[in-house]
Amino acid sequence: MVKLVALYKKPAETEEFDKHYDTVHIPLVRKYPGLRKLEVTRITGAPIGETKFHVMAEMYFDSKGALDAALTSQEGKAIARDLLSFAAPLVTVFIGEVEA
Amino acid sequence: MVKLVALYKKPAETEEFDKHYDTVHIPLVRKYPGLRKLEVTRITGAPIGETKFHVMAEMYFDSKGALDAALTSQEGKAIARDLLSFAAPLVTVFIGEVEA
Repeated sequence: MVKLVALYKKPAETEEFDKHYDTVHIPLVRKYPGLRKLEVTRITGAPIGETKFHVMAEMYFDSKGALDAALTSQEGKAIARDLLSFAAPLVTVFIGEVEA
Repeated sequence: MVKLVALYKKPAETEEFDKHYDTVHIPLVRKYPGLRKLEVTRITGAPIGETKFHVMAEMYFDSKGALDAALTSQEGKAIARDLLSFAAPLVTVFIGEVEA
């Protein structure tokens, strides 16, 4: 499996961010063609000290080809537009191959 | 479920790093008491531009209590010592609550 990971730093306005994330962004993300699994992690802390991160979304696809197709689909473009509208300075996105 | 996430930036010496990670660190990580699942992701790129990240390990536990117990166990202390010995400047560790 291949996954797309979106890792967000803590926003200045957590309540406003979470409202958009939960009610607008995540419902859009669920529309990625070929999405096999979505795992959202609400980040609560760190073993030592604090963390700068707030939430992480992991989107699983069967292959890199399926992920690329999702990113370039109409739905994928809408998801990217929404992401940039509310989280551009906060989010880091990367792709990886998942091992068991 | 609760998970511990270790996210590593690209090392200067990838081959040396991967050898220690695969043959020493990951076998230690599998010894965390109460570990329910380990998922290792080899990071390959980003949708746009490049990524500074190399690998991510996600360690799942039944609860925050189980995670805390794992971190403070003898095995957990050995894992932390090993982590600091080869990846201190590269790794970020955080904890989160997993949603389906």
